[in-house]
Amino acid sequence: MKVELKDKERIDDLQRNGYQIIQNPEKFCFGMDAVLLTGFAHAREKDILLDLGTGTGIIPLLMEAKYHCSHLTGLEIQEESADMARRSVALNDLQDRIDIVTGDIKEADRIFQAASFDCITCNPPYMIGQHGLTNPEEPKAIARHEVLCTLEDVVSRTAKLLKPGGHFYMVHRPFRLAEIMTMLVKYKLEPKRMQLVYPYIDKEPNMVLIEAVRGGRSRMTVEKPLIVYQSPGVYMPEIYDIYGY
Amino acid sequence: MKVELKDKERIDDLQRNGYQIIQNPEKFCFGMDAVLLTGFAHAREKDILLDLGTGTGIIPLLMEAKYHCSHLTGLEIQEESADMARRSVALNDLQDRIDIVTGDIKEADRIFQAASFDCITCNPPYMIGQHGLTNPEEPKAIARHEVLCTLEDVVSRTAKLLKPGGHFYMVHRPFRLAEIMTMLVKYKLEPKRMQLVYPYIDKEPNMVLIEAVRGGRSRMTVEKPLIVYQSPGVYMPEIYDIYGY
Repeated sequence: MKVELKDKERIDDLQRNGYQIIQNPEKFCFGMDAVLLTGFAHAREKDILLDLGTGTGIIPLLMEAKYHCSHLTGLEIQEESADMARRSVALNDLQDRIDIVTGDIKEADRIFQAASFDCITCNPPYMIGQHGLTNPEEPKAIARHEVLCTLEDVVSRTAKLLKPGGHFYMVHRPFRLAEIMTMLVKYKLEPKRMQLVYPYIDKEPNMVLIEAVRGGRSRMTVEKPLIVYQSPGVYMPEIYDIYGY
Repeated sequence: MKVELKDKERIDDLQRNGYQIIQNPEKFCFGMDAVLLTGFAHAREKDILLDLGTGTGIIPLLMEAKYHCSHLTGLEIQEESADMARRSVALNDLQDRIDIVTGDIKEADRIFQAASFDCITCNPPYMIGQHGLTNPEEPKAIARHEVLCTLEDVVSRTAKLLKPGGHFYMVHRPFRLAEIMTMLVKYKLEPKRMQLVYPYIDKEPNMVLIEAVRGGRSRMTVEKPLIVYQSPGVYMPEIYDIYGY
C-alpha cells in the first residue's frame, strides 16, 4: 500500500520479507538492540504478541517477518511515533496482523485483557530518571530515559498481561542486571535465558537479552557470548545472520 | 616447615610464592573455580579476610600469595579437610597469617564477630539438594551439593560478618544466576561486578564470578568475557596469567 511520508521522513529496508519501515532520522531511528531482541526471542505462528513501547513499530514488524505470529500489537505513548508505526504497517500491508495502539505502558493492564498474550517483548528506556536531560519531552529522551515509565512499570504490567507460561523478552543494559533479575523474580516472571552482547571479544558487554517465563521454575540458561564486531565496522557472521543480510 | 603426609596425600605446587598445598586426589582436589575466584577478587594488605567452606585451604593460600592480606581465616566443617588445610598452612610457614577453623557456615555468625571482615570469599556447593547422590556424606558430595549449607546460609551469614562497605566474592554456576542476584539483594549485598567464564568462545558459560558490596548502590559492571580455552588443552593467555605460570 502506498502511504504518505511527512517532512524529514524516509523509508528504510528491513532486509526481511521485503518489509520497510518509516523513520525520521531527526527524531529516533531503531537501533541494534531491537534487531538483536527479535533474533533472541522465539514465537510460534499461533502466538498473540504484544510489544510494549513499540516506537515506530520495528519489533512487531520484525517479529511478524521472522515468526509469522497470528496477531501482534504495538503499544506506544507518543502519537507521532505511533502514527509512523501505523503507516509502516500499512506500507507492508499488515493491517490485519499488526495493531498499533496509542497508550501508556502504565495503563496497559487496563487497555488489554489480563493473561491474554503468549509473548510480550520490550525494548524499554535504559537510563534511570531524567538526570542530565535538557529536553525530557523529546522522543529520543522518552525512548532512552525512564521519563514516562520505569522498569517496574514494564515488568508489573507484563506479569498481568502474559498468559501463565507465556514468554517475556527484553533487551536492557548490563549495569542494571541485578535490579532486572530481582524485579522479574518479584513479579513471578522467572528468568530462564540470558545472553550478553559484547561489542568486541575483549570488551565489556553493552546489552543483555533476557527471556522470562510467567510462573517458571528457578533455573536459567546463560547462552554463549554474542559478539558484535570482529574488527571495526565488520560484524561477526552471526550478526549478519540476525540482520538477515 | 616439614609436615606429615597421610596415606594417599600428595603435595602440589601452587605456582605462587613457592606455596604448596596438600591434597588427596581420592577425596577432593581444588578446581579452576577457586583459582579464577582469587584472580577475580581484590583485597588490600590491611584487609581481614574470611573464606567460607575453605576445604583444603586453597583460597586463603592464594589470596595471601596474591594480596598479602593482614589476616585470613578459613572456615571448614569437615575436620579431615580442615586438618589438611592446617598442615598446608604450616608447610608454607603461614601460621601467623592464616587460621583454619573447623566449623559450620550456618554457625559462622556465632563463631565470628559481626561486621569484622573486610573481605569474604566463598566457593560454595553449586548443586541444589542431594538429588542423585549415593553417598551424601562423602567430602566431594559435601563440597559440590547443598547437603550441609544452602546459598541462603552463605549469603545471610556473609551479610552479618562483612563490615559495611566490605566485599564479598563468590564463584557459582550461571544456571542459578537469578536466584543468586535475588538472594544478594535480599540481604543487602549489592552485586557490583560480574564476569562470566566461557570454556570456549562459542560455548555457554559454566561459571560466574560475582562481587557484591555490603550496602552498595544498585549499579553493576559486567566484565569482558573470560574465555578459558583457545583450543582443546590450550588455555587462553589470561588463564595462564591467573594461574601464575
